Amino acid sequence: MRILKGADASAAIKIQVAEGLERLKGKVPKLGIIRVGERADDKSYERGAVKRMESFGLRVQSYVYPEKISHEDFEKEFRTINEDPDVAGILLLRPLPGQISEKQIENMIDPAKDLDGISPANIAKVFAGDSTGFAPCTAEAVVEMLKAAGISISGKRITIVGRSMVVGRPLSMLLLQENATVTICHTRTRELAGACRSAEILVAAAGKAGMIDQSFVGKDAVVIDVGINVDEKGRLCGDVDFDSITEIASMATPVPGGVGAVTTAVLAKHLVRAAGLAQKV
Amino acid sequence: MRILKGADASAAIKIQVAEGLERLKGKVPKLGIIRVGERADDKSYERGAVKRMESFGLRVQSYVYPEKISHEDFEKEFRTINEDPDVAGILLLRPLPGQISEKQIENMIDPAKDLDGISPANIAKVFAGDSTGFAPCTAEAVVEMLKAAGISISGKRITIVGRSMVVGRPLSMLLLQENATVTICHTRTRELAGACRSAEILVAAAGKAGMIDQSFVGKDAVVIDVGINVDEKGRLCGDVDFDSITEIASMATPVPGGVGAVTTAVLAKHLVRAAGLAQKV
Repeated sequence: MRILKGADASAAIKIQVAEGLERLKGKVPKLGIIRVGERADDKSYERGAVKRMESFGLRVQSYVYPEKISHEDFEKEFRTINEDPDVAGILLLRPLPGQISEKQIENMIDPAKDLDGISPANIAKVFAGDSTGFAPCTAEAVVEMLKAAGISISGKRITIVGRSMVVGRPLSMLLLQENATVTICHTRTRELAGACRSAEILVAAAGKAGMIDQSFVGKDAVVIDVGINVDEKGRLCGDVDFDSITEIASMATPVPGGVGAVTTAVLAKHLVRAAGLAQKV
Repeated sequence: MRILKGADASAAIKIQVAEGLERLKGKVPKLGIIRVGERADDKSYERGAVKRMESFGLRVQSYVYPEKISHEDFEKEFRTINEDPDVAGILLLRPLPGQISEKQIENMIDPAKDLDGISPANIAKVFAGDSTGFAPCTAEAVVEMLKAAGISISGKRITIVGRSMVVGRPLSMLLLQENATVTICHTRTRELAGACRSAEILVAAAGKAGMIDQSFVGKDAVVIDVGINVDEKGRLCGDVDFDSITEIASMATPVPGGVGAVTTAVLAKHLVRAAGLAQKV
């Protein structure tokens, strides 16, 4: 079994980012990361994003607010960042604390700065197969990994396990746009293992540690693991029981070092694209 | 094989519309149908919608413009209808002639009056499984037909042939929301017949007369035909070769008299819901 590392896709994206930066003629775009509170997940993702922007030669600023900030205060702060011409793109770490109406913020975000595709305008574009919008970075990272590995998508039977708005649903539309035959499975799917086994490409995005073992994988299938979980020993692990599938899958992505490592590279690509659109280059 | 007629679902919806009308306390909502040009398809659908609104006790007005109307003139007319408080809901017949930017009109339509779900706000809601929006009427008509026939959707393997923005894509999301396991097939799907044969419910929305024959249908499958085509003899027909599947399917919808007969009933239901939301009842 070939192990598909995220580093390969990231390296390919880095080249595209460098080309995009060149077209911007010296104006280096800035990513604004907005975080409310001190959740470990958020901080870990933020650290990764900051590091990535720096290594790709992009600017980044974190805006951090206390967990108990009122909706009104947060909305005011958000509006200022959203309207700041020096902020080319925004990453809003979610979920937000309960007192803030996430829906309202999603409706406010400028679609042209909405790098992670959370605004209705971008969601509608992804749904319609209109590539002028921004898709959620993790969903797009899956497509980038397949392309970087030279795996053709058109005509393939692809099964996605999970129907979230950050991976399952948008990914189904991105893959449909690439002419895959897409099946969406979830917790209520009957005979889940069988449905997965018939896939040529299996995407695990259920958020359940190790749930996908060899009984879910067809001979020579490609397995993409989008899960990021912590196992009982406190180690990072995916939705796939990696060791159990090595004899049956033809390729698979590890966790960590797989899709997760590509997500922030896609974010960087989106940032440069947003800046290009704003500058009309 | 049991034949699923649209009339049954329509009758069920008519009761819901009557209940909704009662809550509106005498203020009968008006549907505005907007047509540009004299396309036979549009006029036929318009006639059906007018007839339906009348039979459900709802008001309806057609706004008809010449095929060569400029984008600017049409936009002005559209804005007036869109802002008219007496128009509770809008049905825009599409496609519009080439000189009019359909995209711009879709972005203009008030989501609260957008009964056929063409605005980004409603598209995003359908995609997210948020039932406060309006889904395209034809897609919702399929769900209504299944429910009226007492067919449970949850956990079922459903294959949809077709990935359009009026049926395939939104329907996939509506069915996913009902906990079906959904597969989306299309012209680029390999081994299409096989993919269809494993479905417990098969939805044909490809727009190709008679393409679905018995080789596409699994034993005892339910077949829903969304196609509206004209055959070589000039007769209306669906995507399903109806006669060929009677021995293998357990139930199927005819064309005409199937899904098409439910679409305008869903439109009426949306109209009453829009009026209720506007009146906050």
